[in-house]
Amino acid sequence: MSNLITLAHGNGGYFMRQLIEEIFATHLQNPGLDTNTDAASLPTLDGQLMMSVDGFTVKPLEFPGGNIGSLAIHGTVNDLAVSGAIPKFLSLAVIIEEGLEQTTLSRIIASMAEAARDAGVQIICGDTKVVPKGEGSGIYITTTGIGVRAKSLNLGLAQIKTQDKILLSGPIGDHGTAVMLAREQFGLKGNIQSDAASVLPLCQALYDLPGLKFMRDPTRGGLATVLHEIQRARKLGLRVYESQIPIRDEVISVCEILGYDPFYLACEGRVVAIVDEKQADLALERWHKIPSGQQANIIGLINNDLAQVVLETDLGGERVLEELEDDPLPRIC
Amino acid sequence: MSNLITLAHGNGGYFMRQLIEEIFATHLQNPGLDTNTDAASLPTLDGQLMMSVDGFTVKPLEFPGGNIGSLAIHGTVNDLAVSGAIPKFLSLAVIIEEGLEQTTLSRIIASMAEAARDAGVQIICGDTKVVPKGEGSGIYITTTGIGVRAKSLNLGLAQIKTQDKILLSGPIGDHGTAVMLAREQFGLKGNIQSDAASVLPLCQALYDLPGLKFMRDPTRGGLATVLHEIQRARKLGLRVYESQIPIRDEVISVCEILGYDPFYLACEGRVVAIVDEKQADLALERWHKIPSGQQANIIGLINNDLAQVVLETDLGGERVLEELEDDPLPRIC
Repeated sequence: MSNLITLAHGNGGYFMRQLIEEIFATHLQNPGLDTNTDAASLPTLDGQLMMSVDGFTVKPLEFPGGNIGSLAIHGTVNDLAVSGAIPKFLSLAVIIEEGLEQTTLSRIIASMAEAARDAGVQIICGDTKVVPKGEGSGIYITTTGIGVRAKSLNLGLAQIKTQDKILLSGPIGDHGTAVMLAREQFGLKGNIQSDAASVLPLCQALYDLPGLKFMRDPTRGGLATVLHEIQRARKLGLRVYESQIPIRDEVISVCEILGYDPFYLACEGRVVAIVDEKQADLALERWHKIPSGQQANIIGLINNDLAQVVLETDLGGERVLEELEDDPLPRIC
Repeated sequence: MSNLITLAHGNGGYFMRQLIEEIFATHLQNPGLDTNTDAASLPTLDGQLMMSVDGFTVKPLEFPGGNIGSLAIHGTVNDLAVSGAIPKFLSLAVIIEEGLEQTTLSRIIASMAEAARDAGVQIICGDTKVVPKGEGSGIYITTTGIGVRAKSLNLGLAQIKTQDKILLSGPIGDHGTAVMLAREQFGLKGNIQSDAASVLPLCQALYDLPGLKFMRDPTRGGLATVLHEIQRARKLGLRVYESQIPIRDEVISVCEILGYDPFYLACEGRVVAIVDEKQADLALERWHKIPSGQQANIIGLINNDLAQVVLETDLGGERVLEELEDDPLPRIC
C-alpha cells in the first residue's frame, strides 16, 4: 500500500478497513471503541448529560504546540468544560483529502489519542470519508462530545449582573499567532506556541463556587467576541483594562508588524469566567494554583454604563471594542 | 448581504451569527436548540444510550429523491435504528466552501429539518466552518446521533449462526444510481430516485422478535459489503439468490451500460436483517405491511459451506462476490 491516502480508503471496502485498523483503531483503542459496529453503547452516566460539537479546518494541519488532531479533542472538551460538564465520550468524523500522507494522518491521530487520554475522554465511534484531491485541505475533523454536568451548577448568560468580575485564565492570542506564523507566508519566525490545551482543570477548579455565573473559551473571534456575546445577551456594559489583560510581548510584536489586533485572535486553551464580585478573588486564587492559570487575572467588570464593550487602554484612554465583522485570520481552528 | 457564503460567515463574528440565525436557527428551531451556548443539555433518557457518527460528502449536493441535508439525517438515524436504538438527538457540523449560494444552503438545511421531524429527532447543537473556495465541495456535513436502545434487544454479529435467514427490505442500488445519473457526466437520464429515507419503521417492526440477530443498512459498498462483513466476523458462508434480490430494471440497465455491479452500489434506505429461520417469515410479513418494505424478501441464508459470499445466479450458476477493493463510485454519501 502506498503511503498516500486514495479514494479507495473511503469506499467501505478492504482498503478502508485496513486504514481504520492500522491507524485509527491502533492509536485510539479503548474499551468502548468497536470499529465494526454502526453505533456504540454508552456506559450508564449519572447526572445531566450535555452534548457539544465542533468542526476543525485549521491550516496548516500541524503547528507549534499542537495539530488538528489534538485541537479537535481540546476544542470539544473545552466546550463541555466551560458549560460545566465533565467530558466523557467523543465521536470522531474525518474527511480526508486524497493524497494526504498516511504518516501525517498517523501523527495527527496519535496526538488525538494522547489529548483524549489526558482529558479523560474516550472516542467511542467514528467515520472516515475521502474526498478527491483539490476538494479538501489535508483533513477536516469533527468531534461531538458527551459530558456530565455537575449537579449544583447553573451557568448561563442570564446569571450575569452588574458588578460581576471578568476573569481571564492566561495570555490571549497565542494560538492565533502560532498558527499564523506556521503558515510561513509572512516570513516571520517566532517561538510562540499555541496555547491549545484542555481547560477542564481550570473549569473544574471553579465548579463549586456559587458565585460562578458563566464561562466561555475565547476561540474564533478571540476575547473581544466573548465579551460581545455577553454584552448582546445582557444589554449591559463591559469594561476591561488593557493593563490587566495578559498578552505575551512576542504576540504584541507580531500583531504590531502585521496589523492584527490581539483582542480578536483565537485562543484554544484559555477561559473567560464571569464571577460574582464577592468570589472573584477566591476564583483567581484557585486559578493561580493551576499551571495553566498562573497568569490569570481579573481583567474587568460588568457595569451599567453604555451598553458597549470598552477597553481602558494603558495610556488611560478608552477604546470601544467593536463586534468582529471581517475575518482577521481565517482557518484558525 | 450577498447571496454567496464568504469566509466571514465562519469567523465567529457578526456575519456568522446572522447566517446561523437566518438559516440554521430558522429551519432547525426546536425546544432543545440554543444557538448561543457551547453545549446543549440533553433531557433525561431512560435506557441504554447509543451514539453514532457519519460524515457526508455526496456529490452533487442535490439529487433526485434527496440532498446532502436529508441524507445526513437519514444516515445517522439509520445507523442507530439498525443498532436497535430509537434516535433522539443529533449534533450537526457543517464545513461550507466559500462561494456556496445561500439559497442552496437554505434548501439543504430545510430538507434536513424536514427529515429530522419525520424521524422524530431533534438537532440540539451545531457548528459552522467556512473554508476557502477550492478547499471544499459546496458543503460537507457531519451528524452525530444519540439514541436509546430497546431493553430486550441483543443484536450483534456474534448472534449469527448457520441456517439463519438473510432478509432485504427493498430494491438495491437506487441511491447509487440516482446520484451517478445526477452527476450528468454520463449523458444518461433516468427516473430513478434515491431510496434515501429513515429505516426506523422497518427496524422497529422487528425489535420485539427474539429471532432478530443483526441489522445493517447497506450504504457504501452496497449489499455485497454487508454480506462480507458478516462473513468476515463469523467465518461462515453466505448464500444469496439473485432471483430473490429486488433490483429495479432501470438500475440493472444503467449498471449494464456503465459496467457497474449493483451488488456494490449504495442504498440509503434499505435494511439487511439476519433472522432465525423460525421467525424469518414473520419478519418478512411485518416488513410487507410497511410502505418501504413492500418489496422486501428473504434473499438467502447463512450456511456451513466454504466461508465465502456466494451468489446463485438466475441462470443457476454460482458467482463468488469478492470483497470490494476498487471504488466503483466514490462520493455517494
